Amino acid sequence: MHKSRLAGFIIDCQTTDLDGAAQFWASALGYTLKPPPTAPHEAGYRHFETGAAGLHIEVQKVEHPSRVHLDIETDDIEAEVKRLEKLGAKRVQQLHKWWVMEAPSGQRFCVVRPQRTDFAANAHRWD
Amino acid sequence: MHKSRLAGFIIDCQTTDLDGAAQFWASALGYTLKPPPTAPHEAGYRHFETGAAGLHIEVQKVEHPSRVHLDIETDDIEAEVKRLEKLGAKRVQQLHKWWVMEAPSGQRFCVVRPQRTDFAANAHRWD
Repeated sequence: MHKSRLAGFIIDCQTTDLDGAAQFWASALGYTLKPPPTAPHEAGYRHFETGAAGLHIEVQKVEHPSRVHLDIETDDIEAEVKRLEKLGAKRVQQLHKWWVMEAPSGQRFCVVRPQRTDFAANAHRWD
Repeated sequence: MHKSRLAGFIIDCQTTDLDGAAQFWASALGYTLKPPPTAPHEAGYRHFETGAAGLHIEVQKVEHPSRVHLDIETDDIEAEVKRLEKLGAKRVQQLHKWWVMEAPSGQRFCVVRPQRTDFAANAHRWD
């Protein structure tokens, strides 16, 4: 058995001004921006403070056209990807540990490790 | 003064099989589908049961390419649209009472009336 649930969403921005884009979305949605991450591999991300059990929301700098994509968090990425494949989704690309997938209706989404602190208590259990 | 906050998101599906698309997303995210709406003007929508204070999530049949878009809920649509314009967003189209807007980073989103039952208690207040 494994668990999964909606982790939140990523606001993908095709922009040369990541901080400006992040500030717009933080102000629009009423969230506080966390300080920019310091790790080099996190340079393309900005995170929002959404509360302990709040959704995981990020703004990400991307090269493709801007969009919004959903993230599903899970304690077993391979098991979750297989569950989603049975529902009709397709694997697109593995990046680090996570998978980019495509829904039957065409949207891209990601399957990632647990992002929220209440994951174990509140995620759906798939037997 | 008025209030607003993230209401949730709409999964826009370019599909001839709305029920199939809705079932995929319900199963993927672990939500229960509500019965299909009976009002003719709601025929293109399917709603998820996400709990009293949960996000408002819908699957919508669309003619444009599939995507995900965010909804901002507010008790004063015109005041909220003006607030967002000052942040750099643009009005795209008014549909019924709500506004389709475009973020500076290019994503479309909607400004709608309150969708969630805890709106008055928990939305952000803009003075």
